[in-house]
Amino acid sequence: MEKIVEQSILYDFYGELLTRHQRHIYEDVVLNDLSLGEIAEANGISRQGVHDLVKRCNKILEGYEEKLHLIEKFNFAKEKVAKIQDILRECRAANDVCLLDEIEELSNEILENL
Amino acid sequence: MEKIVEQSILYDFYGELLTRHQRHIYEDVVLNDLSLGEIAEANGISRQGVHDLVKRCNKILEGYEEKLHLIEKFNFAKEKVAKIQDILRECRAANDVCLLDEIEELSNEILENL
Repeated sequence: MEKIVEQSILYDFYGELLTRHQRHIYEDVVLNDLSLGEIAEANGISRQGVHDLVKRCNKILEGYEEKLHLIEKFNFAKEKVAKIQDILRECRAANDVCLLDEIEELSNEILENL
Repeated sequence: MEKIVEQSILYDFYGELLTRHQRHIYEDVVLNDLSLGEIAEANGISRQGVHDLVKRCNKILEGYEEKLHLIEKFNFAKEKVAKIQDILRECRAANDVCLLDEIEELSNEILENL
């Protein structure tokens, strides 16, 4: 199950860089949860062919993450935005603007890391 | 001049996806501002070869931007962060937390667009 989640995140960020054929098969496996047998039959290829294609796509997608780190960067930005929103809550609760400098710094960090 | 700026931004976002050889030549042209003649001589290739490689790299880098839109997304985030910082300034000046909801919304927009 965890593997499927990881694959769908990789696909979400880098799927556009696969060929149309690769995307088609990969989506059926990872997003549509079809069996290798079903996909093989629908596409006139062997089960082993589907298996190999998915394995190759995993490697391609992981290669892009190793080079571009988009998922890593997204997670960083997500963490900073969560912190900004925590601080906003504190400011509202205290009706105080004293923590705004921290928000400024966090927003700068988001940009510097993109 | 504008072309060079555009190329260096593309290189900044996608340069890692070029081969080592492509990066080496492309950096000499775009970042180090060497002449085609100098680069050709230093690398034992023709001026035309350097010219063709740069053109091919431009096309590769532009192709990645068309598919991944990282520069577009970065500019979007930059705009939102600038707005957040404008609002922070207003809140501080007015010593008032009334605009914090807007910051929350902007920070959400940053994430949704990444």
